[in-house]
Amino acid sequence: MSMEQLREQLTRIQPLDKDAIQQATQRQQQLTKPAGSLGRLEEIAIRLAGIQGTPIPKIQRRDVIVMAADHGVTREGVSAYPAEVTPQMVLNFLSGGAAINALARQAEAAVSIVDVGVATELHHPQLIERKIALGSANMVEGPALTSEQLFKAIQVGFDVLDEIAHQGSDLVAIGEMGIGNTTAASAISATLLQQPVEALTGYGTGINEQQRQHKIQVLQRAVQQNQPDPHDPLDVLAKVGGLEIAALTGVVIAAAAHRIPVLIDGFISSSAALIACALQPRITDYLFAGHASVEPGHRLILAQLGLTPLLSLDMRLGEGTGAVLAMHILEAALRTHREMATFADAGVSERTENT
Amino acid sequence: MSMEQLREQLTRIQPLDKDAIQQATQRQQQLTKPAGSLGRLEEIAIRLAGIQGTPIPKIQRRDVIVMAADHGVTREGVSAYPAEVTPQMVLNFLSGGAAINALARQAEAAVSIVDVGVATELHHPQLIERKIALGSANMVEGPALTSEQLFKAIQVGFDVLDEIAHQGSDLVAIGEMGIGNTTAASAISATLLQQPVEALTGYGTGINEQQRQHKIQVLQRAVQQNQPDPHDPLDVLAKVGGLEIAALTGVVIAAAAHRIPVLIDGFISSSAALIACALQPRITDYLFAGHASVEPGHRLILAQLGLTPLLSLDMRLGEGTGAVLAMHILEAALRTHREMATFADAGVSERTENT
Repeated sequence: MSMEQLREQLTRIQPLDKDAIQQATQRQQQLTKPAGSLGRLEEIAIRLAGIQGTPIPKIQRRDVIVMAADHGVTREGVSAYPAEVTPQMVLNFLSGGAAINALARQAEAAVSIVDVGVATELHHPQLIERKIALGSANMVEGPALTSEQLFKAIQVGFDVLDEIAHQGSDLVAIGEMGIGNTTAASAISATLLQQPVEALTGYGTGINEQQRQHKIQVLQRAVQQNQPDPHDPLDVLAKVGGLEIAALTGVVIAAAAHRIPVLIDGFISSSAALIACALQPRITDYLFAGHASVEPGHRLILAQLGLTPLLSLDMRLGEGTGAVLAMHILEAALRTHREMATFADAGVSERTENT
Repeated sequence: MSMEQLREQLTRIQPLDKDAIQQATQRQQQLTKPAGSLGRLEEIAIRLAGIQGTPIPKIQRRDVIVMAADHGVTREGVSAYPAEVTPQMVLNFLSGGAAINALARQAEAAVSIVDVGVATELHHPQLIERKIALGSANMVEGPALTSEQLFKAIQVGFDVLDEIAHQGSDLVAIGEMGIGNTTAASAISATLLQQPVEALTGYGTGINEQQRQHKIQVLQRAVQQNQPDPHDPLDVLAKVGGLEIAALTGVVIAAAAHRIPVLIDGFISSSAALIACALQPRITDYLFAGHASVEPGHRLILAQLGLTPLLSLDMRLGEGTGAVLAMHILEAALRTHREMATFADAGVSERTENT
């Protein structure tokens, strides 16, 4: 993929359908409930109408895409887990034993596991094998990705989303696996939000305060070394990002181009959404924030994107778990919007006149 | 039912099973995720283990019980809707057109609609017909319920729950329908929490500020007239409660006695839970707060009960909608707890030593 092809994809992204939004809003006011009493479920149904371009939207096929890659920066000791956990967990996803598998079964979502840069040779009939490199380079020493790797990874995102769109997907949740990737997400979001790294650096999968201080120092060195340009999202993504984050950026862009709503998960997948929205702000209209992670940077990204998380359950696992769990909320919004009787249908009185 | 029979039911309520809790906690630490990274899902699974008395709990049959009744206090003009909406909405529940029906279908929960005191004759093959009176009395003029009505209503709750338990229910959500019942819930919770009524009085199903001030005055008159005793929950329930709230109090007590977890919904069903827990504080261990309603009194009740809502979606509909929506969260907790591989099973490395 080239810069031009990326630009072309970005120009395909259209605004939401205003007519569908208006009709869905009117429908909500006719349903047998006090106006507004379903709260955010009403907003969700209305926005999905605008995304799908129909007053009564439906979600029939649901997908979760998990992008996996390793990070050279793990050599600086930023994670509580050894890097070998990335391929181990990918195999766990493929055998159905991880949290994302259990939650995807519950939500009846198809799971796509993509190796976009795990630092181990991995082969499995269900694995989408699109390895670009054996992990990113160590961002403390120089850019994490070359420009070629960056565009290849975004292309993987486009391709995986295109395939899923072709199969009729109506909703995509994004997730990731990559030991060390909260470090990349912190570097990306600190740069794009122009915040000090310490404001966005949490305890990842479970480091202690001393290790967090070390992680902050590593991040400061990486930013110092690379000088990512906060006004150039792709420069940031290449220099301090990672292969799975770049691939998820591609997924988000392609989903918006296909008018497929995207449920973002925690801090890492949100950093991919942050890049995508910096390239084309209209993309936020296609995004739903699945949950509020306990990572401090997550809150700041969601505020920047103007998204309010649907769930807040103190989760911090990644894999797409919070996003897939929120699928039930979107489904609830659509079920009530579609299935409820109107006041006229049910013979229910509306409000008394004086109110 | 008599006071003695109620006391007998209360003494049947046992503490949670500590062994099951310990084993479930150990299992959570062996699953392929950083310890604690599923956040509240872990706590839910562990508490459900304690409730069911087994380390790997299951929910196979789900129920929602909707108690419906009218309120004499509506004659004071406290609601945005006319009282005839109560029977109209009951018929809407029975024909499957209300929000609770759509959400119960999604959650695969059986719906029981109980007429415990609607002010209109209602007959329907699916309606559980247990009418005690044609609505409660106007609490501004005297007690809402007689002592006989109060115990009969609690008995309805016991009976409906017993039937559902007999059919093998593993989880009960509670909901209600009754124009005017936020007024009763405000009076109950203001008395039991010893708060001024204005702190617990919101906009109900959609009154304006002027009407809210009127509702507060009505509440002050009702409390002044009845002088409910904050140290006697049944006195409060009879004087300023309602038939559906009393019946839900019975459901909550009986569910805890049967070791069935209860999902409470918004302000009104929480006021029933508040009464139940005032009678037997151990009951809180069996309760989950489905969601945070926008009614200000709801937050205060949940704080008193030590419950944190699972969802916060600005809903204020009642009917059990927020409780049934939260069933997906409980199911997610159990799915991950039961279906995930352990570190040993999956060959995934645990944390590095120094962390």
